[in-house]
Amino acid sequence: RLSKNFKHHYSNTILPLGDDCASYSASSSKNQLVSTDALVENIHFKLSTISAEQLGKKSIAVNISDIVAMGGTPTRILITLGISKKISSSFLDQLYKGIHKTCELYDIELFGGDTVSSPNCFFINVTIIGETKSGKLFTRKGAKKGDLIFTTGTLGDSSLGLNIQSGKKWKCSAKSKKYLLKKHLTPIPRLKESQLLVRSTCKINSMIDISDGLVQDLHHICKQSGT
Amino acid sequence: RLSKNFKHHYSNTILPLGDDCASYSASSSKNQLVSTDALVENIHFKLSTISAEQLGKKSIAVNISDIVAMGGTPTRILITLGISKKISSSFLDQLYKGIHKTCELYDIELFGGDTVSSPNCFFINVTIIGETKSGKLFTRKGAKKGDLIFTTGTLGDSSLGLNIQSGKKWKCSAKSKKYLLKKHLTPIPRLKESQLLVRSTCKINSMIDISDGLVQDLHHICKQSGT
Repeated sequence: RLSKNFKHHYSNTILPLGDDCASYSASSSKNQLVSTDALVENIHFKLSTISAEQLGKKSIAVNISDIVAMGGTPTRILITLGISKKISSSFLDQLYKGIHKTCELYDIELFGGDTVSSPNCFFINVTIIGETKSGKLFTRKGAKKGDLIFTTGTLGDSSLGLNIQSGKKWKCSAKSKKYLLKKHLTPIPRLKESQLLVRSTCKINSMIDISDGLVQDLHHICKQSGT
Repeated sequence: RLSKNFKHHYSNTILPLGDDCASYSASSSKNQLVSTDALVENIHFKLSTISAEQLGKKSIAVNISDIVAMGGTPTRILITLGISKKISSSFLDQLYKGIHKTCELYDIELFGGDTVSSPNCFFINVTIIGETKSGKLFTRKGAKKGDLIFTTGTLGDSSLGLNIQSGKKWKCSAKSKKYLLKKHLTPIPRLKESQLLVRSTCKINSMIDISDGLVQDLHHICKQSGT
């Protein structure tokens, strides 16, 4: 609603805001992708249930997911930290340890940021930049009637992990609980799978990062594709 | 300190983090610039002393300043809003009115964002993207002994405006007070001046966005230039 008055688009804009990322062409062979996501204490996480290192990893992973959901490769990140009084320097060291590990794993360059005070709650905002080859951008728009639907991973794990973390009763072994919690706390972006699809001869019409759940996110694809 | 372990740089990185912006080359003729800045309620502004529209304008203006400080032209922004309970929808409308006006004035495309809840304080994080022609990037590094120093605008106005806003006594006319307050609340990024310098035949070695004050920011140039 708030963005409805913004009608200015550059001629090299490939995809305006409204998908997992927006994209523009900076050369004839490559598209640039950008996306931004914030995690706020007591809204998206509680410091009592996630470690600083896990939070660092997760904050980058959810942003990587937005890039790979469009067939892109993540390249650079900018990090804003809103630091409240109770945050210790060892917490920040551990947070950056997690960020660093994830960046190393996915070949991402730390490219900027801002560190500010925040009166009450800690927050972290990550802007991620990535790229795709021209013509290899998979959006929410392209789906056609009759398309087959594929998913990666085992859907629902993270949601169950959240339930377990919130103390909701769920009958399963301690081992399963640990597994589901890990799926919630340290999600794995599907870079390998995405790059395999980009290189494959499969005719892919549309892709999306599932975060709300299969049904809701499939609805996003259907709505934006007009199917 | 926190970023010291991050040593991965892509070969097309022109300028890593540490200046007003970081920069990478996405084509042979142009460099991409990126920067991010956050404004947090009760740290950077008080809702009792700045209007929503002014805040919207200022949040974009301070980011534009980072781009033009390097000789760049701003092109796109991504906005994250952390919305606390007391923020009304009319406040958001006014905020976006200010953002929209500034974007129109400087030809900037709204290119993405995230809207999240924030338990106590409102915050706004802006990531800005811009570009320069290759070879036309002015950093904090290039200064040489004997360089002449030029500034734009009248230094100290914004600082005096902040003093007046904070209720500190300052003998001046009501008209001057209004003028100084405006300089503090709605800063003007120096796009025209920057583009004039880029196109000129002046030999420019270094540029910086003054925010801490002339002496402190000149110190940044000296330190990074080794002069």
